[in-house]
Order: sequence, then C-alpha cells, then structure tokens
Amino acid sequence: MDAICRLLKPRSVAIIGASADAGKTAGRPVSYLVKHRFAGDIYPVNPKVDRIGDLTCYPGVDALPAVPDVGLVLLGPERATQAVRELARRGTAAAIVLASGYAESGGDGARRQQELLEAAGPMRILGPNTIGLVNLTDNIVLSASGALEMDHLAAGSIGVVSQSGGILGAYLSRAAARGIGLSKLISTSNEADLELADFVDRLVDDEATKVIALYVEAVRNPAKFREAALRAARAGKPIVAFKIGRSEAGAQAAVSHTGALAGADRMYDALFKQVGIVRAGSFDDLLDVAATLVTQRALRGKRVAILTSTGGAGTLVSDALGVAGFQTPAPDELTAQGLRALQSGEHTVLDRNPIDVTLAGLRPDLLRGAIRTLLQSDSYDALISIIGSSALAMPELVVGAIQDCLDASGKPVLAYVSPHAPHIQALLNSRGVPAFTTAEGCVAALDALCRVAGWSEPRDEPTGPAVRVDASTEGALDEAQAKALFAGFGILAPREAIVSDAREAVAAARTMGGRIALKVLASQTSHKSDVGGVALNLSADDIPDRMASMSDEVSRRAGFRPTRFLVQEMVSGGTELILGMHRDSLGTAILLGAGGTEAELWQDTTMRLLSPAGGIGREQAYAMVRELKSWPLLDGFRGSAKADVDALVDAIVGFSRMVAQLGERLLEAEINPVIVLAEGQGVRAVDGIAVLAS
Amino acid sequence: MDAICRLLKPRSVAIIGASADAGKTAGRPVSYLVKHRFAGDIYPVNPKVDRIGDLTCYPGVDALPAVPDVGLVLLGPERATQAVRELARRGTAAAIVLASGYAESGGDGARRQQELLEAAGPMRILGPNTIGLVNLTDNIVLSASGALEMDHLAAGSIGVVSQSGGILGAYLSRAAARGIGLSKLISTSNEADLELADFVDRLVDDEATKVIALYVEAVRNPAKFREAALRAARAGKPIVAFKIGRSEAGAQAAVSHTGALAGADRMYDALFKQVGIVRAGSFDDLLDVAATLVTQRALRGKRVAILTSTGGAGTLVSDALGVAGFQTPAPDELTAQGLRALQSGEHTVLDRNPIDVTLAGLRPDLLRGAIRTLLQSDSYDALISIIGSSALAMPELVVGAIQDCLDASGKPVLAYVSPHAPHIQALLNSRGVPAFTTAEGCVAALDALCRVAGWSEPRDEPTGPAVRVDASTEGALDEAQAKALFAGFGILAPREAIVSDAREAVAAARTMGGRIALKVLASQTSHKSDVGGVALNLSADDIPDRMASMSDEVSRRAGFRPTRFLVQEMVSGGTELILGMHRDSLGTAILLGAGGTEAELWQDTTMRLLSPAGGIGREQAYAMVRELKSWPLLDGFRGSAKADVDALVDAIVGFSRMVAQLGERLLEAEINPVIVLAEGQGVRAVDGIAVLAS
Repeated sequence: MDAICRLLKPRSVAIIGASADAGKTAGRPVSYLVKHRFAGDIYPVNPKVDRIGDLTCYPGVDALPAVPDVGLVLLGPERATQAVRELARRGTAAAIVLASGYAESGGDGARRQQELLEAAGPMRILGPNTIGLVNLTDNIVLSASGALEMDHLAAGSIGVVSQSGGILGAYLSRAAARGIGLSKLISTSNEADLELADFVDRLVDDEATKVIALYVEAVRNPAKFREAALRAARAGKPIVAFKIGRSEAGAQAAVSHTGALAGADRMYDALFKQVGIVRAGSFDDLLDVAATLVTQRALRGKRVAILTSTGGAGTLVSDALGVAGFQTPAPDELTAQGLRALQSGEHTVLDRNPIDVTLAGLRPDLLRGAIRTLLQSDSYDALISIIGSSALAMPELVVGAIQDCLDASGKPVLAYVSPHAPHIQALLNSRGVPAFTTAEGCVAALDALCRVAGWSEPRDEPTGPAVRVDASTEGALDEAQAKALFAGFGILAPREAIVSDAREAVAAARTMGGRIALKVLASQTSHKSDVGGVALNLSADDIPDRMASMSDEVSRRAGFRPTRFLVQEMVSGGTELILGMHRDSLGTAILLGAGGTEAELWQDTTMRLLSPAGGIGREQAYAMVRELKSWPLLDGFRGSAKADVDALVDAIVGFSRMVAQLGERLLEAEINPVIVLAEGQGVRAVDGIAVLAS
Repeated sequence: MDAICRLLKPRSVAIIGASADAGKTAGRPVSYLVKHRFAGDIYPVNPKVDRIGDLTCYPGVDALPAVPDVGLVLLGPERATQAVRELARRGTAAAIVLASGYAESGGDGARRQQELLEAAGPMRILGPNTIGLVNLTDNIVLSASGALEMDHLAAGSIGVVSQSGGILGAYLSRAAARGIGLSKLISTSNEADLELADFVDRLVDDEATKVIALYVEAVRNPAKFREAALRAARAGKPIVAFKIGRSEAGAQAAVSHTGALAGADRMYDALFKQVGIVRAGSFDDLLDVAATLVTQRALRGKRVAILTSTGGAGTLVSDALGVAGFQTPAPDELTAQGLRALQSGEHTVLDRNPIDVTLAGLRPDLLRGAIRTLLQSDSYDALISIIGSSALAMPELVVGAIQDCLDASGKPVLAYVSPHAPHIQALLNSRGVPAFTTAEGCVAALDALCRVAGWSEPRDEPTGPAVRVDASTEGALDEAQAKALFAGFGILAPREAIVSDAREAVAAARTMGGRIALKVLASQTSHKSDVGGVALNLSADDIPDRMASMSDEVSRRAGFRPTRFLVQEMVSGGTELILGMHRDSLGTAILLGAGGTEAELWQDTTMRLLSPAGGIGREQAYAMVRELKSWPLLDGFRGSAKADVDALVDAIVGFSRMVAQLGERLLEAEINPVIVLAEGQGVRAVDGIAVLAS
C-alpha cells in the first residue's frame, strides 16, 4: 500500500496533542475514532495525561509502541513542525496537520509552511489548515470537525475532495440529513503536499466510490488534474465540481480583447468541459447532482414525464424544465391507454403532462402502475415523481411504490418533494431515488445526466510538421507581420499592400479594384481604431485626403506620425468573429467569439485549453463554433447563405497549432475580426495582433 | 364589513359535506377549525350524521340556526352547485368551493363553472378547485389541505395569495419549518369570481400583513391587478411574486419581430417592474425574499460585510455576491481597529472580507462586538453572518448575540447557515434575522431589498394633443406610409423618394448625393430583405442594373413584380435599435431592443406596458435605454462618440403616444432599425411596418 492508501485507510493512528476533554476540539478526534469503532490502533500523544478513556496516552512520538500509519497533528503551528519531524523520523506514512497560520494567513505563514514540508521529508502531508478526512466506507474519522458529532455516518458512493475544510463539514451534515451516503471526504486545504489531483486519482481506484464531488478554489497542478480527471471519466466515474472564484472573472487586464474576455474562471469552464467534469451551479447542486449521478441511470433524451398528485408542483417543475430546454410532451395514445386502464376516475385528464393522477398519491398500487407505464413509454426519457402532501400520511408506501419500479427500466427516476418533508426526502435518497426540494435542483440533475451521457474524450490534433517561423520575428508584430505569421498556419488575409505614401496607396487600390480599407501600420498600438488609424470603405480617389487626416489624428492621439500604411481590399459580407488565445496559471486556451468591436459586450465566447499533445482537433473546433450564441448567423440565419464553417474550423485548428508550436514564445495572438465568408469562400484574417517573446 | 372581510375573518362557518371521520379529506376542515380554536360558530352540514365531535351536525343549509358568514363546500361538482344556491339564498357572504372538475378540466367544466357562478348570485365565490384559505392572524383554517395537520401555525407578517392550491400547502409547511410566520394564505385557483387582485387589494388594508407574496399563473384582470399592486407599493407593503409559465415565452408567432421577441412572460416582467413587484426567481425565493422584506430594513448600497467563523462558507457567499454585482470590500482602517480591539488572536487577519473571527463563533461577546462594529461602519450597507458548525453546540447564544445587535442599525442583517441546522435557521427567522441555507438565496434577498429601495412610481406622459392620422389609412401600410405615420409623432425617416422606374430612381439619388438604399415598396411583404427586395450602399450609377435584378428576384421569391421603389439616403454610422409594440391579454407594451436582423439572436430587449393614462414618460423611456445590454454602445463605447440618447428617448415617447392614441386600431407597428446618430444629430426611422385595422 502506498502512502495515500495508508492515509485513507490506516491500521494505526497517532493523535498528537490529544485532549482528554472530549468537549474540546483537541478531544474530538480520539472520541470520534472510538465512537465510530475504528478497528485499528489509536495512540493518543499528550505528555500531560496517562490515559484518555480506555486508551494509553503517550508522552511523545518517540514513545509510541509502533510506527503509526497516520499522525493526526492537533498542535498549533509552532509545535506542529516538531511533531511532523518526529513522525517522519519514525517512518509514519502520512501526517494530517490541522493547524492554521500557514500560507493562507500571509506574513510568516508561507515560510512556516515551507518548514513544515521540509520537516516531513518523505512523509506525505495532508494540510495544513485542513479539517482532515473521513473514510465512511470503513468508519474511520480523522477530523476534529464539529459536524462529525452525529452518531451515524451513512456510507455511500460519493467521494468528496474539498479545498475548504468548513465546506466539507457542511457537505457531510447536509448529505446525512438528505439520506445521501458518502464514501470518502478529504479536505486538502493548503495543499502543501497532497492535492486535489492526488485524491481524484486515488478515488478512481476506490471500489466504494462511484462519483467524485469536488469543491475547488484553484487547481494547483493543471496537468496532473487533467490526467486524473480523464482517468475518472474513462473509468465511468463522473466528477461533479463546484468552483468558486467566479466573480473574479474579467479582473485581469491584458492588451488584447481576448484577455479582457477570458477571465480565469472561464478557463476552468473550458478545462472541466474538456475532461468531462460536470460543473455544479451551486453548492447544493454539488450534493444533489452527485447523488443523481450515483444512480448510474442513463438519460438518452430530453423528454420528461412528470407524475403528480398535486397540480401546482407539477407545473412548477415543468416550467423549470422548459426554461432549461427539456420537453414535457403529453402522453402518446398507447401510454394514455395504459394510464386510463389504471383508474376509472371521472375527471381524470390524461392528455397532458404533468400527468395528474390525483388519487394515486393515496393508492400505492395506482402510483406503481402509473410509474411503470411511464417508464416503459417510448415518449419519455426520464420520470419525475411529485411527492405532495397526500404522501405525508404514508411515506413508506409511496416511497416503496416508486422504489419497486426502478427495475422496470434504466431511465432516470427523480422525485420532487413539495411540502416540507425531510424524512421523505431522506427515505427516497436512501432507496436510490434522488429527491429534490427545488425544481431548479431537478433540472440541474437532469442536465448533469445529459452532460455525462454526451461527453466523449476530445481527440487532439496531431501537431503535424512544424511551420517555419522567422527566427528574427520578435516583439509586438505590426499587422502585416502578424498576418504573415497566421498565413503560415493556413489562415489567409484579404489582398493587401504595404505603402508609405498616398501615391503608392492609390496605385495599390486601383490594382485591387472595389472599395478598400486604409490603416496605419505600426506596432506601437494594438488598437489602431481607437486612435483614428483605420478608415473603411474608401474608393481609390478618397485615399489622399483621408491619409492626410488620418496621419494628423494618429499623431495627435497616439503620439507618433505614421510612415507606413496598409491598403487592404474590403471584405464584403460574411460574419465577423474573434479568434484568440489566453494564457494563465491553468494553461493556454484558444478563444472563439462573436466578433468585432462589440465582442466584449455580447460575451459570446467559448474556449478550449490546449493539451500537452498539441492543437485542438477538428471535432472540438467544430463544437466550439456550435457553442456560440451567434451560431445561427453562420448557419443560414433568416434565409442568408450558410457560412464556410469548414474553413472556420480549419482556421481554429491552424491557430491552435500555431499557439501549440510557438509555446511560451508566443505572448499574445488574436485575429479580430476573422471574417467567415459564404460556403466555399473561406475565411479572411482582416486584422490581427501577435506578440513574440524577444 | 364587506364580503371579502367576512370571508377572511368569519364569525360563523358552515361546512357543507363535512365528514365525521377526521382522517378523511372531508373530515379535516371541522377538525382543523376545532384544533386551532376557531372562536366563532361552526355548523357542519351532513344529512347522514347528527353530531361531529361536540358539534351539532345539520341535515342541510336550510336547517342552519343562523346565516353563516362563510360556507365551505366540500361536495363534488355535481352537488356543489345546489349547495352554493342554498347558501346564497340564506344570505351567506361567501362560499369556498373545493371541488375540481370545472374550467381547469376542459370538456363540460367551463359550463359547470358558469352554472356555479350563476347559482351564487350576489354571494362571492372563492374557487372552485381551491384548497381554501388560512387566516393565521386569527387562527382560522378554512381548508382541507393535509399540510395543515401541524399543531401550531406560526402567525407572522407575510400575506400569501396563490393561484395554485397545492403550492399553498407547500409554502405553509416550508415557512413553518423555517420559522417564518404568515398572516393570511389564500388559494384563488379557478377564480370564477374572486381573484388575485381582490386579495392583494384587501391585504394592503390588513394590519397584520407587511409583505405580500404571490404565486401567479396568469393575471386575469391586468387593470385591477395594476391598481391593487400600486396601492400596495404606495402603502409601503412590498409584493414579491413567483410567476410560472416562463418557458412559454416566445411561443407566440406574429408577423413582426416584436411579437417573436416578446413572449407573454416578458410582459409580466414589464408589468411587475412598473408596479414595483419584485419577481422571485424560484419558489424558495418567494418565501425567503418575503421573509427578508418583512424586516423592513433598508439597503442603501451594494457593499456587504461577511462575518464568518468558517472560511469556506464565507468565500462561497462572497463569490455569489460578486457574481450578482455586490461588493465585499475589506474593512476600512477605523473598522479594522474596532475589530482588532475585540480580540488578541495571534493569527487574526482583518484586512479582508469575509471577516474571519474564528473564535467569535464560540464567544458570543466577540460575535456581538464584531457585528456592532460592522453595522456601524461606513464601509458597509449590509451584513451577512455565517453560522458554522461551531454554533451547533450553542445555537441560543449565537442567535441571541446577532439578535441583540439588530437595534444598533437599520441596515439589513442576514444569516447563512452552513451545516445542516434547521433548528438554528428557524430560530434566526423567528427572531427577525432572515436565515438562508444557500448563497444564492442570500443574494436574491439582498437584490430584492435593492429593487424595493430603487423603485419609484412611473410618471406617465400626458397624451398631449391628438395627432391627426389620415382616417383612410388602413390595412398593412407600405414602408413610406408607415414612416409618414411615425413622422406624425416626431420620429423622422432619412431623406427618401418614391419612384416607379430606374430613371426616376437615379434622379432622386443624384439629388441626395452620397450612397443610397433601394427598396421595393409594397405592403404585400413585411420582410422585404427576405425576398431580395433591399439593396444597400449603392451609387446612383449602380441603380438601373440593381433595380432590374431586384425586380426579378422579388417576383421569383415573393410572387409579385414590384412597381414602386423607395430610394433612400444611406444613414452612415450610428447604432441600430428596434422600436416596436406587443399586445396580448396583459395589455399593450412598447418594446426597445438591440436591433437589426440580429435582434432575435441577442435577446437584448426591454419592455414597458402602457398604462390607461397614456404613453410612456421620458423617465421610463430613459430607463428602458439604460436597461439594454447594449447600452454601452450608445454611451461612448470604446472611445466612440456618444449617441443622441435624448432624441431616442423622444422617439420612444412619441412611439408610445402613437400606440396609446390609436389604441385597438393599431394592430402592429415596428421601426427596425431606428438608427441613433451621434449627440445632437437625432434618430432616423430607417425601415418600419404598421398595420391598422380596416
């Protein structure tokens, strides 16, 4: 067994700084281990007492009768380092350090944390500043959280890893109240050593764990995390993650729009999507979605039957489903016949959904028949059973009736509990029927099932032969240089010419024919249009006057007098997009967005992180295009011609290959706009910037 | 006392069809009245029994010893009509009819409901298909809902009116579990007679009610509802409404874009906004927001202090606040000093928010001091106190400490309960501290406080002198006629001329100078561009060829050969918007949206319903402009010139006056696009349609 295995399932535990007073925080761990019948050896360490309960208490780590698998260190930060050093010297596999006052507290904390890590040597550390861990599969509690006062820990199939300790306690107590069982709970907190990815990786191999729930503040090691998450997805163990830090999005300033659009939080969206992680929209979803995924029932479509004995609640759920794009079709004729055969009520209306079988709530046989009929119907992909107040009088019968039907089909069966009835919710959850008290929760759960069913591992694009990039190219490229770089990766610009005066410009314009754009050419400013350096839709005759006024305006607003200009044919028609990159601690991403100057306004963007393997594959690039809100504009919007999506996909793949090949050397790159022309006519990189490390 | 007063607070109640078996639905009402100690007379009516409990049971309505204030009819639909007739004959003020099988069930139901109404004559009817009502202020239960089995009904200040009966029971039981008190609960359901607005109006005058919560399926009488809601707002009794039917939005098809954009649900958004109703985003918000508004504490800004003894939960709440646009600034120096003075913890970090006073959760005196300090700080407008698991051991002390501080300031104080601790949540709510188990709930509550504080009654625009509209104008107007109509209300078109051949067109174009647009002029099609009937950006020389090809294309695609064309100067620059109207059962609304052909895609629209008084006032028109996501485009986006917002406001007001003046005669009207030019340059109605009743 490796150290992480021994940490999660130790045969012996030393509690350093244990208190004999079970009411004190330092008294809890021993008391919890005993209460939940830890089968291994418990070694309390405290020089001031001889015994804690029935256990011998040892004066120090050196006095322990054997080497513990785990040392649980309850001492303050000053003394914890020494304890860790002693544990490591004895050959302990792992130490859990609860104290705070390390890297999270600023000041001396970071240094203190480094010392702790050095003291541990080869011994693994969980924490510091952690609430510890709970192995519910084996009834092992290694924590001081007050949330563990509960007498019974419901074992189940959700493995939880949290970067916050307090949240872990909240998760555990809420899960217990809802009848949702967990397998392992681990609070990684400061992650001086062991981190999120280590435990994700371990839980993939944990037989008791079917679903992994993560509370994420920041992924410290994206490559390791990605690998662990992909392992989980391949093993059919879905991950659901709640990540905070959403409102920091957009805080980062950068020269290119891409930076302004793609806050770090959106990078997580991209990462999660790519490795098959379902992102929970709220903390409660982290619990309820996980409980739904545990049932391992497959959602194959979006048609939901709602069975209700109380009109209002059924409508409530139906409405929420509709908002989220689910359908609640009326029963087909065969299904309606089946329902009619069950009862002879005079006023039973069966031509609509929610399907209101008012009496069924009071007659479990009817409820059972209706559920079976709906689950076997070809019209529905899932069922939500509404629990109304008529069930309050006979919860066992109603829950039992639903449970009896689970074998009839592999379709998801959920319950919405309308009145306050926590005991019914807990009963349902414990019997394998995910039960919700909000319509939004039902929807999030079904949505998660959809996402899990719809995910497939992205295929990366082979990098292909390296494209030659002029080694002397460096710094902020001017527009023409940037376009030459993009062209090397197959993304062509409109016809254009570099000129230095009006005479050359007019000559170039006449060669091109049609209307032209005139722009200053300089690397001093990446936003030419903001300083008056762009004029569109000119005829050749317009050029001399316009160039003169442009020169004046740019000198006034940007502080330099332009000496070079770009004359470019106007691209008429097509759809403007933005194609860029974003790099932060999580990695490097390719960004596609609805474009032009309004890109920031509409927030219509999508991203994909580059994997170590190379660029974005065509399939992923196509998925990006389809994800845009403005996708209809490319797909023959209101009778217009379809856009050359194939060429756009090529451009995305080419751009991603460029970013992958240049690596750290490429500091910024953005094509804005890239115009997608009608089918068969390709795309044009109309404007762009690139900055290469010098 | 009028009939509604007698219905809500009867001195005597007849229960028609009462059962002696309290376990049966028909046995509940008498049992509930007795259990909750109804102080008036109870007359059970049932020919088959003599007594129900201690009460005399009467064989029929005619046999009653006195005229009851209220008749609660438990009979099925066949016999209910006769009972209602008899109650009316005796002079009963109001009857509550619980039976279903009326208008809601289709078929014969509508006729049955009409018969019921006729049988009632001057007697008022609540229902049918209602769950009844509960007056918690006076302990009067007139319902058969199983949710009322509870022994104690917590009286409070929220008056609830619901168009669904089942939902009412759910609301009551959830409120009770959370320690939230209610004043009145009324289920109006089918609203054969008494409806939502009647009870809103009544609750405004109800002393016990401070906040009104509505569960809305459809407002039957918008004018009455608007008046009642405005009365509530003026009386300082906020209304919070949860309306379902959100996913029906967009189902309505109409010729103009406006119809496609403005589904009925968005009309409710507009109505609610205009009369000061806070729209709840979820059913749980309907309860939690109401409980927050009951505290009548004023939120004067968006800066929130989060006081926590558990790091994770504080961050969770802070993140959700940030997403919703609230700020969580760090304490200013004075506030930090105040906090520091409270404790001498070595590792206390006070330069950030959430403010983590780890020890305070265990020491109520510290908690009290910290809350007072934060409430008195000029840096904060509200406080959220996080209840962690350390409070589980001593709920009374923690809750008491928060409660003690409420007098220190009028700022909102909320609590977020992190672990599962329903008893603490109930305790907090019952002591006047709204307590939440979700971060999203906290945010919704603060947001509601903001909305209530920010609302002011819209001032309508005096209609002004009527504009002469040619009486012969009728049917679908062509573009030129429509623009003439708009111009009558002050909304000018670009320079344009009507021509019938290329020669005239070229001549007109030369007069205008610059580039021109050429369009077919016909009322046969409202989407000229879809059939090839629009060409933009032409020079005079381009016209002959383009007109010929346009004629061909239009004949091919629209089936008629155009004989008249519009030559129009191109408007260069400016921002395209859409200005239209939408009419449905809720009234007539003015719609403003981000425009052009992409309007449907971006869903960037806002609406205002016309009041009976006339057009939209300037203030409201300006608010509409500011509400657009694309507002920055008008406000000097990325260095561009500011748009002529004043002229746009004039156009909105003028358009609304047109719609108000023409009333039912105007079937459709839309300007798309209306282009807003730079400041001082006005707006131009570039294209538009109008349909007048013939």
